[in-house]
Amino acid sequence: MNPLIDDRLAELLFRSLRLGDLADLPAFADHDPETFRLYVDACRKVGRQVLWPTYPTTDAEPPTLQDGRVTLHPETLRGFEHVRELGVIAATRPEAVGGQQLPLAVATLAHAYLMAGNLSTAGLAWLTTGAAHLIEAFGEDALKATFLAPMMSGRWTGTMALTEPHAGSSLGDLTTSATDAGDGSYRIRGAKIFISGGDHDASENVVHLVLARIEGAPDGVKGISLFAVPQRRPAAFGPNAADGPLEPNDVHVAGLIHKIGWRALPSLALSFGDEDDCRGWLIGAPHRGLPQMFQMMNEARIGVGVTAAATASVAYHEALAYARDRTQGRALGAKGGDQVAIIEHPDVRRMLLRMKAIVDGSLALSVATARFSDLAANGPEAERDRAHAILDLLTPITKSFPAEFGYEANVLAVQIHGGYGYSSEYVPEALLRDQKLNSIHEGTTQIQALDLLGRKVVAGGGAALRALNETIEAAIADARKASVDEAIIAPLEAALGEVGKLTMELGMKGAGGDLDGMLGHGVDYLTLFSIVVIAWQHLCLATTARSEDSDFHRGLVQSARYWAATELPRVALLAERCRVDRSYLELDPSWL
Amino acid sequence: MNPLIDDRLAELLFRSLRLGDLADLPAFADHDPETFRLYVDACRKVGRQVLWPTYPTTDAEPPTLQDGRVTLHPETLRGFEHVRELGVIAATRPEAVGGQQLPLAVATLAHAYLMAGNLSTAGLAWLTTGAAHLIEAFGEDALKATFLAPMMSGRWTGTMALTEPHAGSSLGDLTTSATDAGDGSYRIRGAKIFISGGDHDASENVVHLVLARIEGAPDGVKGISLFAVPQRRPAAFGPNAADGPLEPNDVHVAGLIHKIGWRALPSLALSFGDEDDCRGWLIGAPHRGLPQMFQMMNEARIGVGVTAAATASVAYHEALAYARDRTQGRALGAKGGDQVAIIEHPDVRRMLLRMKAIVDGSLALSVATARFSDLAANGPEAERDRAHAILDLLTPITKSFPAEFGYEANVLAVQIHGGYGYSSEYVPEALLRDQKLNSIHEGTTQIQALDLLGRKVVAGGGAALRALNETIEAAIADARKASVDEAIIAPLEAALGEVGKLTMELGMKGAGGDLDGMLGHGVDYLTLFSIVVIAWQHLCLATTARSEDSDFHRGLVQSARYWAATELPRVALLAERCRVDRSYLELDPSWL
Repeated sequence: MNPLIDDRLAELLFRSLRLGDLADLPAFADHDPETFRLYVDACRKVGRQVLWPTYPTTDAEPPTLQDGRVTLHPETLRGFEHVRELGVIAATRPEAVGGQQLPLAVATLAHAYLMAGNLSTAGLAWLTTGAAHLIEAFGEDALKATFLAPMMSGRWTGTMALTEPHAGSSLGDLTTSATDAGDGSYRIRGAKIFISGGDHDASENVVHLVLARIEGAPDGVKGISLFAVPQRRPAAFGPNAADGPLEPNDVHVAGLIHKIGWRALPSLALSFGDEDDCRGWLIGAPHRGLPQMFQMMNEARIGVGVTAAATASVAYHEALAYARDRTQGRALGAKGGDQVAIIEHPDVRRMLLRMKAIVDGSLALSVATARFSDLAANGPEAERDRAHAILDLLTPITKSFPAEFGYEANVLAVQIHGGYGYSSEYVPEALLRDQKLNSIHEGTTQIQALDLLGRKVVAGGGAALRALNETIEAAIADARKASVDEAIIAPLEAALGEVGKLTMELGMKGAGGDLDGMLGHGVDYLTLFSIVVIAWQHLCLATTARSEDSDFHRGLVQSARYWAATELPRVALLAERCRVDRSYLELDPSWL
Repeated sequence: MNPLIDDRLAELLFRSLRLGDLADLPAFADHDPETFRLYVDACRKVGRQVLWPTYPTTDAEPPTLQDGRVTLHPETLRGFEHVRELGVIAATRPEAVGGQQLPLAVATLAHAYLMAGNLSTAGLAWLTTGAAHLIEAFGEDALKATFLAPMMSGRWTGTMALTEPHAGSSLGDLTTSATDAGDGSYRIRGAKIFISGGDHDASENVVHLVLARIEGAPDGVKGISLFAVPQRRPAAFGPNAADGPLEPNDVHVAGLIHKIGWRALPSLALSFGDEDDCRGWLIGAPHRGLPQMFQMMNEARIGVGVTAAATASVAYHEALAYARDRTQGRALGAKGGDQVAIIEHPDVRRMLLRMKAIVDGSLALSVATARFSDLAANGPEAERDRAHAILDLLTPITKSFPAEFGYEANVLAVQIHGGYGYSSEYVPEALLRDQKLNSIHEGTTQIQALDLLGRKVVAGGGAALRALNETIEAAIADARKASVDEAIIAPLEAALGEVGKLTMELGMKGAGGDLDGMLGHGVDYLTLFSIVVIAWQHLCLATTARSEDSDFHRGLVQSARYWAATELPRVALLAERCRVDRSYLELDPSWL
């Protein structure tokens, strides 16, 4: 049976990131390390025992659209009930709104098991968390009183309705309109696309968090406002709205998109206000929709990161079990004898070690970034700014590294399965399809690259980068003290220096007006930065596990060595590319 | 409309590889450059106008299995009729067996259009070519008289039935048995899996080329024999067998494999001799099955290479058209104004240029390798050995580079399409699924790596590598004479030297008994070798196009520059990894 996530790694992350210490912060005072662990245990159990067995079936039999309504697979409904009961949606929210007030780091680690078990089912809860959190953060009391309780419990679910057919990455170009109805609501009109969970039968109502433009609003991103647009609107607002009658709110399913992965979670084209009777309620101040949305974006992007890590992890464990079980061929140079398990072949071990290094690094980074989010929001006052700066810097990396490198891990899982991997009788191909979304949704990898290099590293005169540098240098000092293998430490130190130097040079290009020269290699910059950050994560794991004499520990050290020997040398090479190559900057589109 | 393959590139390859000159060889004396071009034109037309329009439908509606028989999509049947009529199956075979006696290089270029159009439909012909060619090369006259004519015309089709459930890459472990029936035939018993085209309704009969073990044969690869096992056997052998009655030959469909790509071409589990009445006819001498099969393997692997190039090419052209058409966002630093086509964004151009470099390099390499095959078989006597050595060396690279890097190109096509790329309403995801097979079938990438480093470069004391070196050095001299940009030439020269040096070092390790140390990084070696070979191909294209003043030429030069700046620097890095990294060689499987 696939463990989904290695429990030894989860336990090590607990120690390495000192998650238990978070209970000492006032915000988490009602908890202790034991209650953190209990939550992880509960999610692990549901992920493994309830969700994972439903995965193949719900992937193979996607939701159906009939008469404008979407029907989920019965196994998705059953799985979502379990997820709901865990209190996943409000896990990190305060007790005041029905939450468990857990640190995001703990929830992130716990949710890895759920996303690994069945990301479509757990995704319904994840989307609802994001939507509800926006209402909680910016909504007026009447909105909160009406929407929060049913959403936090999962009786109603939520969506993020941002994308329009001609405004995906470019939100400033969206055209959905909002007209003041004079009764506290707005009339919403427009079309949205790729709305995950936009309609289904797992909840009594779906609340769309819609970005729209109030009539007369400024052009571009400065004229976008955020609205709560329920699929069915309550007759009266207030704490018991969900128990009262609900009437249709003129939100219609315009089409079901045939996604290649996350197949059990419907992605829809929706139209709002076809009959001019779609009502939305403004959340927060007018024209503040984008900054509000982005205030939640860190969490959403960490969510993508941990999901990508989870999807790669499941594939790694499938491949590992297969490689131990499947016999084929013999050792190099051997004559005759029985066939050996394919894990005995060096190249199969290469693929497995690469996958492990990617998976462990991705999961560690996701939880580490979530911990900076906890410290930024709830840490000691004096540390918050610093934590926030590091969080901002790590977020685009957490969003993109597990997605991009995780995809490679998923490809390797198919390859290790050989011909069987190419068939849908085996699960790796489905995981591969799932993984591809993570480089696209919640901001493509290209968007993350621009965010990192064009915004995050230059913000505050490079303050975030300095803070991260200090943190990594401290980890290096700890590792040296613990006598960690210098072959792991020294290349990281060198690569870290290279990042600093390159960032300065690229920043200067930008300051000199050469924006293309600065940002044109943004994806290469993101990649090299990610390689360094993951090396740091491996170093932390190796340092913490140092004292253990176990196979698990030896595997971690070997992953760290592999990463140092294989990936860190790429940093200088990618940096040089960022500095000198202009091949595609000087490419005229007509030459293609 | 997707051009599938860039005609300007096809034309340039004609010139760059001097394909027309092949008509001067006695074997191709009935041809001239014009008839070569006519064949390419004819295939282009069928690929574009007949096959490509059928691709989405035949992918979406795969063959069905009912009552033990497989039914293809009607569009596949219609497409196959056109492919048959082109004479594709026997295109390279002699006129004596009904062929057109075209050079493999010309056929490879032409067939790129067909595989690009619909690889499942064209694949039926491709498989038949391989099977018929084996009978032609090794079969006795009676077998040839019976099977060749209907197979070469496509009235009967063929398969390669090698793989068994527990013997995929390790053919020496197959257990299908053959017992002399005393009447010139053998009774065949066994199970085969992943047999593409193993049953269908596009032909009157399917002839399986089956590897099996004659009773009492030696163990391992030295005891494998090759048999022709028709699905239905002719009552009498001879030239008119196909017109006479055919009776069932106890070959049964045991299952239809749900492949993730090439979905219109059924892949089957077959059982032979359930009722002990399956007859097969020995091809060539007993126990010579594997060497015979491998004599055809170069062609099959070049076929995989050009198919992978074609699949990446289609995706490239989809992405290019989309990037020109789709508007989203604005130039870096721009304030306001209309959205621009995404091709204006540097990172989209990066992805497109990378795809182009991979596609052009893959197609050029496939045709170039096929040309060495022509020279090895039909060139001037004095040149044959040398051509054969280079062919042997290039074959594993041609098999694996387009598959592995082509896959990356296919991933980029999905990424460029954004959210739309993640849906099956757009074609890139289907091409991505198709592409993945190419790193698995006809010998995985791992097998190619062992073939290159463990066999090809060390054969004859390194003679092949010396011959290839001289060829590349000659191309470098030509490029210098033509004043090609030194930024393209110098890094290739350096990387070529690195390959020679590394090969010597690894060979020494092997000679010293450290087989793991020599071969453990085989895939890295294969990758770096491939990067150099592709740089050589780009150099040849850039040299030939040098005199042209066209956008197409500028694009080629820019691809070559990109490759030199981005990929060639990886060679030294990968070489160092081959030399020093032992992370996974020293990895105990229990640490994972």
